[in-house]
Amino acid sequence: MQRRTFIKKSTLTAISVGLLGVIQWNGKSTMTSKTLKVNGQRIASRIAELAKFGRDEKGHGYRVAFTQGDIEGRAWFIDLMRKAGLDTSIDAAGNIIGKRKGKNSSFKPIAFGSHIDMVPDGGNYDGTLGSIAALEIIEILNENKIITEHPLEVIVFANEEGGTIGSSAMVGRFTRDDLQRKSQSGLIMAEGIKAIGGNPDNIESCIRKKGDIHSWLELHIEQGGILENENIQIGIVEGIVSMQDWNVTVEGFANHAGATPMNLRKDALLSASKLAIAVNETINSIQGRQVGTIGKIKAYPGASNVIPGKVELSLEIRDLSVEKVNSLFAEIQKKADAIAKADNTKISFEKEFNLPPALTNERLRLKIKESVQQLNLSSKLMQSGPYHDSAQMNLITPIAMIFVPSIGGISHSHDEFTKAEDMTNGANVLLSTVLMVDKE
Amino acid sequence: MQRRTFIKKSTLTAISVGLLGVIQWNGKSTMTSKTLKVNGQRIASRIAELAKFGRDEKGHGYRVAFTQGDIEGRAWFIDLMRKAGLDTSIDAAGNIIGKRKGKNSSFKPIAFGSHIDMVPDGGNYDGTLGSIAALEIIEILNENKIITEHPLEVIVFANEEGGTIGSSAMVGRFTRDDLQRKSQSGLIMAEGIKAIGGNPDNIESCIRKKGDIHSWLELHIEQGGILENENIQIGIVEGIVSMQDWNVTVEGFANHAGATPMNLRKDALLSASKLAIAVNETINSIQGRQVGTIGKIKAYPGASNVIPGKVELSLEIRDLSVEKVNSLFAEIQKKADAIAKADNTKISFEKEFNLPPALTNERLRLKIKESVQQLNLSSKLMQSGPYHDSAQMNLITPIAMIFVPSIGGISHSHDEFTKAEDMTNGANVLLSTVLMVDKE
Repeated sequence: MQRRTFIKKSTLTAISVGLLGVIQWNGKSTMTSKTLKVNGQRIASRIAELAKFGRDEKGHGYRVAFTQGDIEGRAWFIDLMRKAGLDTSIDAAGNIIGKRKGKNSSFKPIAFGSHIDMVPDGGNYDGTLGSIAALEIIEILNENKIITEHPLEVIVFANEEGGTIGSSAMVGRFTRDDLQRKSQSGLIMAEGIKAIGGNPDNIESCIRKKGDIHSWLELHIEQGGILENENIQIGIVEGIVSMQDWNVTVEGFANHAGATPMNLRKDALLSASKLAIAVNETINSIQGRQVGTIGKIKAYPGASNVIPGKVELSLEIRDLSVEKVNSLFAEIQKKADAIAKADNTKISFEKEFNLPPALTNERLRLKIKESVQQLNLSSKLMQSGPYHDSAQMNLITPIAMIFVPSIGGISHSHDEFTKAEDMTNGANVLLSTVLMVDKE
Repeated sequence: MQRRTFIKKSTLTAISVGLLGVIQWNGKSTMTSKTLKVNGQRIASRIAELAKFGRDEKGHGYRVAFTQGDIEGRAWFIDLMRKAGLDTSIDAAGNIIGKRKGKNSSFKPIAFGSHIDMVPDGGNYDGTLGSIAALEIIEILNENKIITEHPLEVIVFANEEGGTIGSSAMVGRFTRDDLQRKSQSGLIMAEGIKAIGGNPDNIESCIRKKGDIHSWLELHIEQGGILENENIQIGIVEGIVSMQDWNVTVEGFANHAGATPMNLRKDALLSASKLAIAVNETINSIQGRQVGTIGKIKAYPGASNVIPGKVELSLEIRDLSVEKVNSLFAEIQKKADAIAKADNTKISFEKEFNLPPALTNERLRLKIKESVQQLNLSSKLMQSGPYHDSAQMNLITPIAMIFVPSIGGISHSHDEFTKAEDMTNGANVLLSTVLMVDKE
């Protein structure tokens, strides 16, 4: 619904941007004798099958990392990987790794995949498409008896939605302290990792060094509405934006809601509300693609007849430019100080995440572009607003990402949807790109 | 801390209001041959003892109705009541009732008491003072071998903080539907009432009809800062304000916080924040003692990387005039409609409580005033911002309330405090008033 107006307004602009994207590329097309294609129906039916794990009473999937649905979905996926002949194991961080030998064992593996955990009340395509398509590549190579030059690795990262936990561990950024952090499941990370078969006591053993992996490719749904709006089939990601998260605490004074006159209150929720509006105004005060969100809020003690004495909330700012994120946050802090002063409360910010932007590899982007042209698909260069495991992998290997359209731009919601045709297109681009990278 | 400025500014006004209070009264003082006094030390030590039940790891009491602390605190109190010779039972709503025979069994009982449950993270005086002082009256009468003309009843109401559940049941306002409502403990009311020894299946059996009780008296801490600020020892309550509560739902659209541009969001938390500010502005827009509070808030799905698709919050407005509450709410609704329209969200209000104001009985107020004069204490007429069981009892019997100062005006907080001397004063006024009413 929310997209309709947008489509009407921007169709013209969208097409010209699309054309510009093609003109900018100038990639040369290399046709192979036989163009391998994935089995789109198998992908779609596996997406539907995975969606059944951890279903709640309303029929919605529930595979938040480390919960029963996640554990069962992973078991199902590992079984499929093994049936496809992958040498499959779980590393210390809980990442699922399936290896397929190449002709040349001295070559570094080409790795691809995504994740299968979800946010609470999330959808059925985020992460799962990239994971199931990665497995599909293996099935097609098996069916066509193709052995690649490089070894191949399918990787399904653990707890992506909880802060790219599995991939950050793989690149050595997940500390022993992080193991004590609470996960969305209610378990601390160490307990959760253990629950999915990892080994938190020896978490460092999952680390892959720079150069250990030849390349990392991730197919993913866009999670925004740009491709659908502009009627483009494939997004070639130029970079993943920086994402900074803070835990914000507003301190006031809890008191009786009936006996405390308005002018004597120190209402933490009133200050928090002013802050939420200040965040929105600050983010919107300048041109650009930056976003700022307050997704969590909790008032203490949390009774209708008590003035909140404390409020905890989350703050997240994302942009491809770290400088822009920093200056927006500085502005928000300034406004928070003024709000706290006016309301006789205290507002403090504690940094939760600080993820730098990750630029994709140009050589890999060109391979994707060639694949797109070979498959007669339309494409555009775009940034990724959502953070991904790819951004972590960027620290140890060249990365690239392939996006396919999300209907209505909806994601992290039950209404998340990507057409089977678009999933097939994306998987075909992934397959073709893997083979091209292998031939390098 | 918050009171200091207020005291400096208003000392002069406070004194003149205090004098005016005395001038208005013109009550006649009747000295009895012997003025009975309560044992203040016993009251203070029982307050401290009751505070130990349900203690959390920080040493704070936790006796939210129907939880383990409430159950244990009630058992301790029932034991004391029985040791004081009261014929003690639990009615179908879970109210504790202790009866003491009078000389004339055809007389209706004079009842007094309060409650001993608390809000989450509440203090040690709210309700408990009135309950422990009621028991103290019985102890003093026992020690002085006094049998009153009327039967006496000590009543400790169940789940006052969850919406005067026990007293509303006693006056026939608690419906079978209400039994299905969730209580703060997590249990539904029916389960909670069962847990404290009530009988939800026969809830109507607790109903007391109009005329069944001679009078109801409740001693309570003020929970506001007026008495302390004006240096007055006793508040004589003229009425309990009307209290109206709504459950508010803001509906937006949950979506990915990274992929959804600012201009395409339907952020339920942003609308909720604007509403919180609108409530504050509306309440402050006119002169008077009205208060408006948002004490609860919950965002769905509640993850830092998801735009909230739904927010649930509470709204409470209190004033002695129902008309004023209604007109303030109408204004808030108008502002909510404008916010929802601007943000492309939906805001709806569902009435949760609608408690009318309750005026205290003039005859009883005069008895309290006489007791105050006899005890050489200072007093003033005042309204009660907080709602109380007394307001429910008003439907079936004449009521009166005695307030004592709350230090710093703090209540519904761990920092709630009333001096032992003030508790003793209040209990002495209660004792003297009971005896005067008995002599009528």
